[in-house]
Amino acid sequence: MNGTTHTGLWLIGARGSVATTTIAGAAALAAGLHNPTGMVTETAPFANAALPPLDTFVIGGHDTVPCPLPKRAETLAEAGVLPHGLPTAVRAELAAADAEIRPGGPSGPHDPRPEDEAVEALARDLTDFTRRRGLARTVVVNVASTEPAPARPLTAEDPLPASSRYAAAALRAGCPYVNFTPSTGLRHPRLAEAARTAAVPHAGQDGKTGQTLLRSVLAPMFAQRALAVRAWSGTNLLGGGDGAALADPAAAAAKNAGKARVLADTLGEAPDGEVHIDDVPALGDWKTAWDHIAFDGFLGSRMVLQTIWQGCDSALAAPLVLDLARLLARAHEAGLTGPVDGLGFYFKDPDSGPGALSDQWRALRGLADRLAPEVRA
Amino acid sequence: MNGTTHTGLWLIGARGSVATTTIAGAAALAAGLHNPTGMVTETAPFANAALPPLDTFVIGGHDTVPCPLPKRAETLAEAGVLPHGLPTAVRAELAAADAEIRPGGPSGPHDPRPEDEAVEALARDLTDFTRRRGLARTVVVNVASTEPAPARPLTAEDPLPASSRYAAAALRAGCPYVNFTPSTGLRHPRLAEAARTAAVPHAGQDGKTGQTLLRSVLAPMFAQRALAVRAWSGTNLLGGGDGAALADPAAAAAKNAGKARVLADTLGEAPDGEVHIDDVPALGDWKTAWDHIAFDGFLGSRMVLQTIWQGCDSALAAPLVLDLARLLARAHEAGLTGPVDGLGFYFKDPDSGPGALSDQWRALRGLADRLAPEVRA
Amino acid sequence: MNGTTHTGLWLIGARGSVATTTIAGAAALAAGLHNPTGMVTETAPFANAALPPLDTFVIGGHDTVPCPLPKRAETLAEAGVLPHGLPTAVRAELAAADAEIRPGGPSGPHDPRPEDEAVEALARDLTDFTRRRGLARTVVVNVASTEPAPARPLTAEDPLPASSRYAAAALRAGCPYVNFTPSTGLRHPRLAEAARTAAVPHAGQDGKTGQTLLRSVLAPMFAQRALAVRAWSGTNLLGGGDGAALADPAAAAAKNAGKARVLADTLGEAPDGEVHIDDVPALGDWKTAWDHIAFDGFLGSRMVLQTIWQGCDSALAAPLVLDLARLLARAHEAGLTGPVDGLGFYFKDPDSGPGALSDQWRALRGLADRLAPEVRA
Amino acid sequence: MNGTTHTGLWLIGARGSVATTTIAGAAALAAGLHNPTGMVTETAPFANAALPPLDTFVIGGHDTVPCPLPKRAETLAEAGVLPHGLPTAVRAELAAADAEIRPGGPSGPHDPRPEDEAVEALARDLTDFTRRRGLARTVVVNVASTEPAPARPLTAEDPLPASSRYAAAALRAGCPYVNFTPSTGLRHPRLAEAARTAAVPHAGQDGKTGQTLLRSVLAPMFAQRALAVRAWSGTNLLGGGDGAALADPAAAAAKNAGKARVLADTLGEAPDGEVHIDDVPALGDWKTAWDHIAFDGFLGSRMVLQTIWQGCDSALAAPLVLDLARLLARAHEAGLTGPVDGLGFYFKDPDSGPGALSDQWRALRGLADRLAPEVRA
Repeated sequence: MNGTTHTGLWLIGARGSVATTTIAGAAALAAGLHNPTGMVTETAPFANAALPPLDTFVIGGHDTVPCPLPKRAETLAEAGVLPHGLPTAVRAELAAADAEIRPGGPSGPHDPRPEDEAVEALARDLTDFTRRRGLARTVVVNVASTEPAPARPLTAEDPLPASSRYAAAALRAGCPYVNFTPSTGLRHPRLAEAARTAAVPHAGQDGKTGQTLLRSVLAPMFAQRALAVRAWSGTNLLGGGDGAALADPAAAAAKNAGKARVLADTLGEAPDGEVHIDDVPALGDWKTAWDHIAFDGFLGSRMVLQTIWQGCDSALAAPLVLDLARLLARAHEAGLTGPVDGLGFYFKDPDSGPGALSDQWRALRGLADRLAPEVRA
Repeated sequence: MNGTTHTGLWLIGARGSVATTTIAGAAALAAGLHNPTGMVTETAPFANAALPPLDTFVIGGHDTVPCPLPKRAETLAEAGVLPHGLPTAVRAELAAADAEIRPGGPSGPHDPRPEDEAVEALARDLTDFTRRRGLARTVVVNVASTEPAPARPLTAEDPLPASSRYAAAALRAGCPYVNFTPSTGLRHPRLAEAARTAAVPHAGQDGKTGQTLLRSVLAPMFAQRALAVRAWSGTNLLGGGDGAALADPAAAAAKNAGKARVLADTLGEAPDGEVHIDDVPALGDWKTAWDHIAFDGFLGSRMVLQTIWQGCDSALAAPLVLDLARLLARAHEAGLTGPVDGLGFYFKDPDSGPGALSDQWRALRGLADRLAPEVRA
Repeated sequence: MNGTTHTGLWLIGARGSVATTTIAGAAALAAGLHNPTGMVTETAPFANAALPPLDTFVIGGHDTVPCPLPKRAETLAEAGVLPHGLPTAVRAELAAADAEIRPGGPSGPHDPRPEDEAVEALARDLTDFTRRRGLARTVVVNVASTEPAPARPLTAEDPLPASSRYAAAALRAGCPYVNFTPSTGLRHPRLAEAARTAAVPHAGQDGKTGQTLLRSVLAPMFAQRALAVRAWSGTNLLGGGDGAALADPAAAAAKNAGKARVLADTLGEAPDGEVHIDDVPALGDWKTAWDHIAFDGFLGSRMVLQTIWQGCDSALAAPLVLDLARLLARAHEAGLTGPVDGLGFYFKDPDSGPGALSDQWRALRGLADRLAPEVRA
Repeated sequence: MNGTTHTGLWLIGARGSVATTTIAGAAALAAGLHNPTGMVTETAPFANAALPPLDTFVIGGHDTVPCPLPKRAETLAEAGVLPHGLPTAVRAELAAADAEIRPGGPSGPHDPRPEDEAVEALARDLTDFTRRRGLARTVVVNVASTEPAPARPLTAEDPLPASSRYAAAALRAGCPYVNFTPSTGLRHPRLAEAARTAAVPHAGQDGKTGQTLLRSVLAPMFAQRALAVRAWSGTNLLGGGDGAALADPAAAAAKNAGKARVLADTLGEAPDGEVHIDDVPALGDWKTAWDHIAFDGFLGSRMVLQTIWQGCDSALAAPLVLDLARLLARAHEAGLTGPVDGLGFYFKDPDSGPGALSDQWRALRGLADRLAPEVRA
């Protein structure tokens, strides 16, 4: 195994449900134990994009919780998130990743260290990992719990929240960066310039795994059919850590902003209707999302579409994390810098691009084509 | 009013719910009583396609039931399908259309007349209407009740069912033709050659108004996300004439064939799962469609999406009928012949083209562009 | 018609949706225009309870909005709440009731008059109506919009909110009283003694029309089957005046307290789960309530029941208002005083009695038996 | 352990999902590994009924499939029906029960043996088990796959189907008998007299585990509220053996007859609406039942209730099987004979008694009281 052909994947929140599922899943797929269901980059349109194979990834990350990954995986298997038997089958890989998890230290506004010093320490963790493991590059992906949304738009004077410190550290260490959460990340005014002119590719934000995924195909349908959406209401029930985090109205506000955007973008204006996120511990990592869409048809006739989505959030997120790690690694190799066009397919609140999933899918395939190495005659 | 600038719309099943809603709606929109909600051809992408305005349509049709249109419209208003007050407001237009309804006579295998004679009589009705009313052309749209599906694939020896006789009459009379139902229409082996080489444009078949519309956006979502659909089950509850017609298993079979096709086309193979159509008279013209989609995510995790669609079938169909009448009239004017590419957006079982709604939407806009008159410098 | 055999029905909020539907419905039933669907007191178990017939009711009420009842009824018919044609058919009865509506005057904490003076004025309206119309008695029913719930438990020092002033006026005027809303009514500490020792019968509170009705049959099912409810979550979407009133979190809190009680009473303890009430103006008077119940079965297996209730609140409430008016009138005639046992069937938050609907049904039939006049040998 | 204080439980279909869950569950509860969620006889009203404790049951049965119970239990654990780890924890008990499973031999119309000889052989298995294990009595419970419903009402001349042979054998061997399936069992005309005059107690039929359970609480709600149910439609999706068995229209017909009865009994007449049972292998032992209830409220307003039940059939059935085994054993001990009154709570299609669950619950508690030993002063 030649280190220079290996790619690092550094997960912020490396012992959470999404990270654990990502790590266990990568190992399971590399070992041929499962089909790559849910991994978009394993489908035909990406065959020529020269993406790094899953078995060339070396995984580490930041987390402050002490529960080791093999134990966390057992818990997820008992909850039905991971297949039974999988934690045992990939115990070695889980332990190896766990050995590369660093605490990250106190961070956010309450970190006693000067901001720059804290960022520097995080960047050193990244650089150290990349060098020590002999990696061609390390992609940083934020899959930590959602931060409370700021009560007002941030200004350049505001301190960097934790998610932004990690993001700044990634740029400083020359690492491609993905924000899979609705937390601030690179969208802090003080990081705007750095994000725009970054020497590395980055992407965000807020992985699109359930209700918003549905909305991004249903809203265009209403628009294309000239049906007038009157109200689009939604309730999400979820347990697990995410449920508790989002029961905080400020965190939920962050999440809901992204959800509303897809409707406004696609329908022309945001329809009436609220979105609720309830913490229901009994559901564990399983999420139920109910949407109720009241719309008008011909001559003002009143109609209704309701959808009920019952999914496992970690299982929906993990393959997208692997997809993004592969795509960002290849984008970095190919010399792309700044926000990467064509990744709106993956995000509730993408940096740019269309809101309809089908257009995002087309854009993503366009990116795959751009990433494909030129074939010399 | 100059007759040569007027367009005929000839509805097979002209006193049914869809036809009545179409006629009342066209009058209401022409009079500015309602917004054109649900009419795709009234949206921006069609602004330059030179489609005939709604107030230039003259409407007639074939039907064997005697209930006059103004009375039928009253019944629909009582059932909540048409807005109260509308039948009164457009009574003159309904009566005018009713005066142009011809019985069509006994038809199908039980028509005692020789087939060619029956077709000729129908064609004469069309020609007579067009000439007498001084129309530039007449578009024929089949919105009659669904015929029972043949028990086996038809051969050239089989007699033409009623829907095929009407279709043949349209071609013979030089009228653009649309089959908005799942009945055989032009898909009889004996009409294949005529359809392919027709001097007029035609389109079909089976208007996509509810459950299949949804499927044509949801199935691509699963495919694009590499999620493995295990079973897609559906139940439709509907009253009205359609409910009774489709309670006949043979008619339902015709309808379901189209529904299944979109899944097979988009997902690569048809998933498990049945589709039921129940006649529930209490629902009248309102339809409820429940879909249950069992799919696998990452590492084989089991997830479920359910959708419940509650719509008024006639109100969903009528604006599409008007769209198609306008598009086919313009296609005829522009010299298009044979099956018109780009209309899969409207049909469960289109003659050609992609199965995903977004791709069909793109194709439809392409057609709008092709229909736009060239602008001379 | 002999006035002394007539009964008054005095509606607080007499020009609201519920009141208008109640008045129009009473007239329609009295005229034989509709079946008494939804009226429990028209079923067999009440045949011998000597309840006053609907055509012996004389209706009036308090309201501050000026829109006359015939006009309000037209609006409700356009919204599909009342059958088309009904407002015209019962215009005389609507106008007659409208003529008996008094403004009630400014009330609640912001009423500049001394509390006792305000109550006295309201009571005079009741006494005047009863005497002027020659009625045997007048039943007062509060169907006004929900008041904001007090931020803390009320004490005897707190001023009477409007609902309590009306309730006090009913007692003072010797009128049977029903609180069909979650507003405070007789449950103000300063009215507790008066309520307990009232010389008239009264009942409350908060009519049970939809989600809670369902919960009162589903929760006992889980309890009887020894299934462990883990979380019971609900979202209500409604427009109309009630939607706007309940979008106020304080008003919603009042409503939700009653909803939660039925679960705690029946299941032994309140399960996890929130209840949301969203104002969705597009739905008008139609309400959609989604409930999601996560429960454990044998050996801890995880199961889910979901219910979706789509109903018209006014149409659900009105027949219960008529039922209660008849029952309270007869209870008064039969000499019952204070809170009437056996009416939990009608209320989310009854004054006493069991929480399961089947037990409440039994209690209600017991009340019917108690109300039946003794048959002399 | 004194054999004479032990009770036999003999399961027809002893290696099916329901039986395996019953056997594993009984062992798990006896060992204190799980709470008795779902077991009604473990709740307070049954405390004094002197029911045999779960740890005094000795289990055996008939089955023709060879897969041993420990292996079957592993499969169910992988499918999420049994908790992981349980098959290992109760392996000894599973193996012990497996050792008491007899093939039952060819049976039904295709059994080459004379009917009486076949019944005699089955009865011998029961007698032998009871004597050999020194049991006070053996309760026979039919949990085998549903037989196809006969195409016409059976006459005394028709041969006994397999379920009836097993039932006849139970009576002949003096064993209390429960038919938990919709198969014919004791309802064969040739067994009617024997069933009526049996010296042992028996009960049936068709365990009420999901959709019908719901219907037995919802239908009374509509009736009590005088709401007019217009149509009650249902679709059941299920995999596992039951899904395949019921995909046979004749078997489904047997099941649906019971489902329809509860509506007709409770609502006065059967509403419109069909019930579908679809085999969806992807769902395994998990069942989804969708019900759509169209009902009329006051003044003919149209409303809808929909329910979605997602449960594990085996986990719903198993605790009821244990309940019935305990109740029938005690009924036998107490000298009850013939059809046992008060068990309608457990069955879709009970031999007698009310249709509403609340009334059945009251009747069941009455039975518990009758079973309680008299307390001597």
